[in-house]
Amino acid sequence: MTQNIFEIHERGALEITPRIHVRTKEDLAAAYTPGIAQLCGAIAENTENARRCTLSGNLVAVITDGSAVLGLGNIGPKAGLPVVEGKALLARELAGVNAIPLCIGQDTPQRQAEIIAALSGSFAAIHLEDFKAPECFELEERLQQLCSIPVYHDDQHGTAIAVLAGLINAAKLRKQNWKTLRTVILGAGASGIATARLLKEAGAENLILVDQAGILDPEVQQLNAAQTEIAGQTNPEQRRGSLSAALQQADVLIGLSAGRLVTEEMVRSMAPQPILFALANPQPEIDPQLAHQAGAGIVATGSSQYPNQINNVLVYPGLFKGLLESGKRKVTTAMKLAAAEALAHLAEPLSADHIIPDALDQSVAEAVSRAVAGAQESGAKADQKG
Amino acid sequence: MTQNIFEIHERGALEITPRIHVRTKEDLAAAYTPGIAQLCGAIAENTENARRCTLSGNLVAVITDGSAVLGLGNIGPKAGLPVVEGKALLARELAGVNAIPLCIGQDTPQRQAEIIAALSGSFAAIHLEDFKAPECFELEERLQQLCSIPVYHDDQHGTAIAVLAGLINAAKLRKQNWKTLRTVILGAGASGIATARLLKEAGAENLILVDQAGILDPEVQQLNAAQTEIAGQTNPEQRRGSLSAALQQADVLIGLSAGRLVTEEMVRSMAPQPILFALANPQPEIDPQLAHQAGAGIVATGSSQYPNQINNVLVYPGLFKGLLESGKRKVTTAMKLAAAEALAHLAEPLSADHIIPDALDQSVAEAVSRAVAGAQESGAKADQKG
Repeated sequence: MTQNIFEIHERGALEITPRIHVRTKEDLAAAYTPGIAQLCGAIAENTENARRCTLSGNLVAVITDGSAVLGLGNIGPKAGLPVVEGKALLARELAGVNAIPLCIGQDTPQRQAEIIAALSGSFAAIHLEDFKAPECFELEERLQQLCSIPVYHDDQHGTAIAVLAGLINAAKLRKQNWKTLRTVILGAGASGIATARLLKEAGAENLILVDQAGILDPEVQQLNAAQTEIAGQTNPEQRRGSLSAALQQADVLIGLSAGRLVTEEMVRSMAPQPILFALANPQPEIDPQLAHQAGAGIVATGSSQYPNQINNVLVYPGLFKGLLESGKRKVTTAMKLAAAEALAHLAEPLSADHIIPDALDQSVAEAVSRAVAGAQESGAKADQKG
Repeated sequence: MTQNIFEIHERGALEITPRIHVRTKEDLAAAYTPGIAQLCGAIAENTENARRCTLSGNLVAVITDGSAVLGLGNIGPKAGLPVVEGKALLARELAGVNAIPLCIGQDTPQRQAEIIAALSGSFAAIHLEDFKAPECFELEERLQQLCSIPVYHDDQHGTAIAVLAGLINAAKLRKQNWKTLRTVILGAGASGIATARLLKEAGAENLILVDQAGILDPEVQQLNAAQTEIAGQTNPEQRRGSLSAALQQADVLIGLSAGRLVTEEMVRSMAPQPILFALANPQPEIDPQLAHQAGAGIVATGSSQYPNQINNVLVYPGLFKGLLESGKRKVTTAMKLAAAEALAHLAEPLSADHIIPDALDQSVAEAVSRAVAGAQESGAKADQKG
């Protein structure tokens, strides 16, 4: 396998190919000088023309600084390149979206935002990947202020959207309202915070966030600004203590942590037939078989090895397709909710082993794209066309 | 034609396409997670591995800030995009080189260098395009210091190399040594300065640089640092005055200016049957027919409308192919001289209407590539393999 993977990726997974061919002097005149002077002039008059007649109108930059690579941690910008290249490859393969993998040096969020913004005229959207928390929150916010194109941190929002889709369906299978379920999120990094935020925005009433030091509690732990904010909006029962304390009689566990942190005993302490999303990669928080043995009703992971793979790849290809095709300038909460609902809908008919569509299902990107393009700014419902 | 050119470039001239296809779960595992974790790990151990197994080892960034677009001036970053997109397209079409068009906000050379350097881990080489002088000199120098990959400002070096190739052949046709010819360069911007520098490095003995205000002279004009430096190394006869004064009895005029600045009378004042490279675009410094009528022996322009098109496109595709294939980290003077000699050689058999190869000649990129890859650091001769 080691040999094989290097052979597969020899010289890279992507290439830059022509949509115009240059074989004659006439071709050269049209593809280059003097033909392009007309394009330059049209864009100088109105920069919006660049969208229409250059790659920049159809190109997503997938950018990492390699500071928080799944399962590997802070491995540096260049070592993060295979992830963004894989993401760019899947954007094209699953949704026909042109995406270019880039890495940026590690620096303050302010500097990184300025650097990316300085080049943002080259792109139609920005996909941030594997930037560590809490810096990723500031980076995304600053970039959204500096740029007139959509900015989307996949580790945050891709995870949040896919989790919401899975949760809607898991609750539906149990004929429950997901909003009232006692839900524990394990992991208060980029994906944990973003998932908590989106679930709150969608109406979740009983969320508890747990980090390594236990239930988020500004009186006990040192929290960053994002954690403090979400801690103030969650934990309505004001529980204190460790993960075990949080899980007592919980209906749902959403694992967004870094390893095997959940025991069978913890699962047994939860409400009957709990919903377990053990999304840590490469190893889920608990082995799905053990989770079922301990009484779990529905189990999902982030891996393709098990049923119910809740993975960002369900979201971002279609999301960027929808953004680019509709010309939207921001990723809104309405879009995220619409995307989650579209994903949830696509998984029907539901079963305990099928609460989320397959990552390679050809209809996923199209459905998410339509939901994003049709999302109404003021509401949560997707206005799905056609 | 206006309509047509927009249709031709609709949605851009390039796309990002997969070299790996993702149709099955096994494909997904190899193209994305968990397969790429191995690549990430290998690069974390040694960043050189990124060259082998990611696009970054085969990708040239073609970057502009649109501050000095040929014939259009300072039109801004986005309006400069069609030029870099056209250049990237030709790199692929003529030499099989992957290149991505990018634009960067206008700023100081120091800030621009820092921004580009922060992203340079994504690329195998950097092609600077249409940055105005004199800032372009500082930008290129700073980038070369900050980056471990080749940095090449095409307006400077592409022009210089193509001019040298043409000059070698024009002199050869006249059975003269080009180094001793009295040569006037009109235009002391990026291309004029770089051409003067390269001709000096190649052994030119009698160069005069002329700008709008006349022969470069620190006692008469306000010159930038690059102009002052080259003024001190040229004009051995210590001429003073306007272009007319410079051209008296000159053998060669190399026009790298912005328009119709050369009259028939000036041509008549030159040495018998002078060599005229009227390379301003879109309009040459003098109409080639008028130049011939006024006694010019050999005339070249930058346009495909006339014989002898001396254009950067002869140089950079093959140059980047050679850099990438050989893994060289700098563009050296030896490479530039080797490329010029290879280009000159390719034009044989020579005639007054054929002193330079055709831009679409399939063998150009290969010849330049081999010359660059084989150039010896210490000398000026290309070590052409095969």
